[in-house]
Amino acid sequence: MMKNFIDTSDFTKEELLDMANLGILMKKTLKAGHSLNLLYHKSLGMIFEQASTRTRVSFETAMTSLGGHAQYLAPGQIQLGKHESYYDTAQVLSRLVDIIMARVQKHETIVNLGKHSNVPVINGMSDYNHPTQELGDLTTMLEHLPEGKRFEDCKVVFVGDATQVCASLMMIVTKMGGHFVHFGPKGFQLNEHFQEIARKNCEVSGGSFLVTDDEESVVGADFVYTDVWYGLYEAELSEEERMGIFYPKYQVDMEMMNKAGANAKFMHCLPASRGEEVTDEVMDSNRSIAFDEAENRLTSIRALLVYFMGKRDEAYDVCEKALGLK
Amino acid sequence: MMKNFIDTSDFTKEELLDMANLGILMKKTLKAGHSLNLLYHKSLGMIFEQASTRTRVSFETAMTSLGGHAQYLAPGQIQLGKHESYYDTAQVLSRLVDIIMARVQKHETIVNLGKHSNVPVINGMSDYNHPTQELGDLTTMLEHLPEGKRFEDCKVVFVGDATQVCASLMMIVTKMGGHFVHFGPKGFQLNEHFQEIARKNCEVSGGSFLVTDDEESVVGADFVYTDVWYGLYEAELSEEERMGIFYPKYQVDMEMMNKAGANAKFMHCLPASRGEEVTDEVMDSNRSIAFDEAENRLTSIRALLVYFMGKRDEAYDVCEKALGLK
Amino acid sequence: MMKNFIDTSDFTKEELLDMANLGILMKKTLKAGHSLNLLYHKSLGMIFEQASTRTRVSFETAMTSLGGHAQYLAPGQIQLGKHESYYDTAQVLSRLVDIIMARVQKHETIVNLGKHSNVPVINGMSDYNHPTQELGDLTTMLEHLPEGKRFEDCKVVFVGDATQVCASLMMIVTKMGGHFVHFGPKGFQLNEHFQEIARKNCEVSGGSFLVTDDEESVVGADFVYTDVWYGLYEAELSEEERMGIFYPKYQVDMEMMNKAGANAKFMHCLPASRGEEVTDEVMDSNRSIAFDEAENRLTSIRALLVYFMGKRDEAYDVCEKALGLK
Repeated sequence: MMKNFIDTSDFTKEELLDMANLGILMKKTLKAGHSLNLLYHKSLGMIFEQASTRTRVSFETAMTSLGGHAQYLAPGQIQLGKHESYYDTAQVLSRLVDIIMARVQKHETIVNLGKHSNVPVINGMSDYNHPTQELGDLTTMLEHLPEGKRFEDCKVVFVGDATQVCASLMMIVTKMGGHFVHFGPKGFQLNEHFQEIARKNCEVSGGSFLVTDDEESVVGADFVYTDVWYGLYEAELSEEERMGIFYPKYQVDMEMMNKAGANAKFMHCLPASRGEEVTDEVMDSNRSIAFDEAENRLTSIRALLVYFMGKRDEAYDVCEKALGLK
Repeated sequence: MMKNFIDTSDFTKEELLDMANLGILMKKTLKAGHSLNLLYHKSLGMIFEQASTRTRVSFETAMTSLGGHAQYLAPGQIQLGKHESYYDTAQVLSRLVDIIMARVQKHETIVNLGKHSNVPVINGMSDYNHPTQELGDLTTMLEHLPEGKRFEDCKVVFVGDATQVCASLMMIVTKMGGHFVHFGPKGFQLNEHFQEIARKNCEVSGGSFLVTDDEESVVGADFVYTDVWYGLYEAELSEEERMGIFYPKYQVDMEMMNKAGANAKFMHCLPASRGEEVTDEVMDSNRSIAFDEAENRLTSIRALLVYFMGKRDEAYDVCEKALGLK
Repeated sequence: MMKNFIDTSDFTKEELLDMANLGILMKKTLKAGHSLNLLYHKSLGMIFEQASTRTRVSFETAMTSLGGHAQYLAPGQIQLGKHESYYDTAQVLSRLVDIIMARVQKHETIVNLGKHSNVPVINGMSDYNHPTQELGDLTTMLEHLPEGKRFEDCKVVFVGDATQVCASLMMIVTKMGGHFVHFGPKGFQLNEHFQEIARKNCEVSGGSFLVTDDEESVVGADFVYTDVWYGLYEAELSEEERMGIFYPKYQVDMEMMNKAGANAKFMHCLPASRGEEVTDEVMDSNRSIAFDEAENRLTSIRALLVYFMGKRDEAYDVCEKALGLK
């Protein structure tokens, strides 16, 4: 098995499904009032090159809920690859903590950290992908599968800008054999690099994908997903620019949800700019599963920590016994 | 029972006394060498819109001492009510942590957070009040009651500027049926809003209150309390201004302590500006219970965490058994 | 016994050796898969006047590994000796946490903190010394003693600038009866104050010391140690200046290591400026024990926390039983 969780492309469908299921099982066990000491007294080093409250809180709560502790190294506290070589930083951290997560500016940073460390490394988002979000989103969709449908029967439509979250959703949906659509304006669609990954994933999994600006593409969606229109990093858009490009066609409103279908669910990685990419009406309706999705960042991160710390089998065993399933 | 601890006005005298007593009991249990796992593996999210070492350290130690963990979100890390709606932030945090505390710039922020969250919210000070300080101060006065006196027999004099700590002390003393005096210069006295609260509290409790610039008002005080003269936030005073207004009349020196009475105790929420609102002689004398008071921030916060996490009965039970009282 | 760990000069050779051995024993116990709850639910307050990732992570992991928790107070969060007197800060912290560590700008700050606190205080580096580094380095040398040699037979050569790490290495080596050489250019050699300490240490221990710019002084070294050439604080050197002063004579390269001896080990407190004070070839060779040394920051800090929290005897007992030595 891979030592690090940097890209879901490094794993099989079965492995990813196993991680998601482990998360769901541990969540159930904890909600039933049992304690889990799977990472008792272990330390996670969290390196944030960019601030992120949601990801940080999820990792920190995950470690606490398993008897361990997460150390928060804020932006500026460790400068990866600057004063000290990647190798030296990774080697030293490997001696001082049991597992590392990093949110990085550039994807090569997390790759380098993973290559040079002796302990597992988890990608907490780079400028390329957001794999813990992927696993959380898979978890959420599995928990909200339309009655009688398998994931392989589902249609997932991402509406709006080709952010890392859009690319990541594509990667996990096509990997798992689902049907993915990116409905976004030309110039803000998933690029050829990602379309190539989608093609390869679908060849193996039997899934499908489509990139389009045709609004009819939302029809029949089981899940409608969107993200902010800010643009990323250096290419950040002003409010005027982004409204000019995306509004109103790509705003998820109740009309779009109804076009998708009566049972279509709404997802958002959050934070949302209500009134831009999504209306209050959708966010506040029972169509929205965005807060379940937020909770499943924690659910899936807990599973990843256990999995990559080599405690997968023990975790299944402990949870199944606690829940009387074994 | 209320879900949140935002304002002591939301609680009865009996409830507040119960919280204070719970804190004292848990402190005794821990000092006797017992462990408490009442919040085992639980996570507290701490949001600080303003820096505060004392409050932060108290909450963090409190969680650790009960088997849980406190996450420190520093000023700037979460912007409440800015990029994201209060509702969304509160809903997400409710999925990721078990309880929330916040120190906020504006009181409406903590009220909004409490309204929209599903988990308990504790007010770690706003521009309006400081209820964890209130409970800690009540605890300290209960531990240092003059021999043969009930709290309802005590006179508590706050000397100086009408800070939130002054208002908070008034609220807890009048709520509990004690006798409160604010001895401060005109223009820096408790305003009509707070005097109205005092009046209502006294109607119910049988306590009394007085706002005055008459120095004879300290006579007979059981507790003499002061706070810095900085002024708050936008209205901060220069050293020259504050000395002109408050010095020497409102400085707590040994002469004032002796005027209060031979057994009067000195209290301060700290940090103190020695030489301004209090002399070294008083701070360093055995009249001062300011460090006991500092410790009781921790004592009362520990009780509040347990109380609002629904562990009040279990806590009494565990502690009484450990101490052989049951 | 001393309450605080501020300067190794306050302790005997036997006490320091006992601390180092305790660290090694606890490391073995944890690596064998046992848990240690010696500091169960205890809180360490960490005050950093200067940023330091390595020291902070070591303390934080150490507390977690013993069942306790370390609170990180970043630079600027507590201002020691500024708005509040040392005495008041130390007294308040003594009520809120169980033990304190501080990395300070000026040595007098840690001395004052130690004097006024009621709980133990550990020096996490000042402008004068770095005693947790000393104990970690002693630990590393004890683990890598040349076959058949006692520490008292070893020669330890520090190459380069007289940093706090250089001074600290001198203090621990001469205290323990070893043979210390500072090989550095005139103007950047250990000053008379430190040479006086070395003399006194050697009188008691039977060790020796030499300060020299003679490159033959490395011959026969068991350990060759270096640190960056930046200079400290206000006296920081530009790259051009430092290369002019130290390069190439004081760069540890394979030629110097071979001159030292075939079995000489290389040490560095890290972070290293590869290509300046040490070559890649040396850092990446099996002569380097710099990462073992980094790990032993944690090893020795864990021992110090236990020792100064009064758990030394219990720790030996628990570890020896766990390992079947008793």
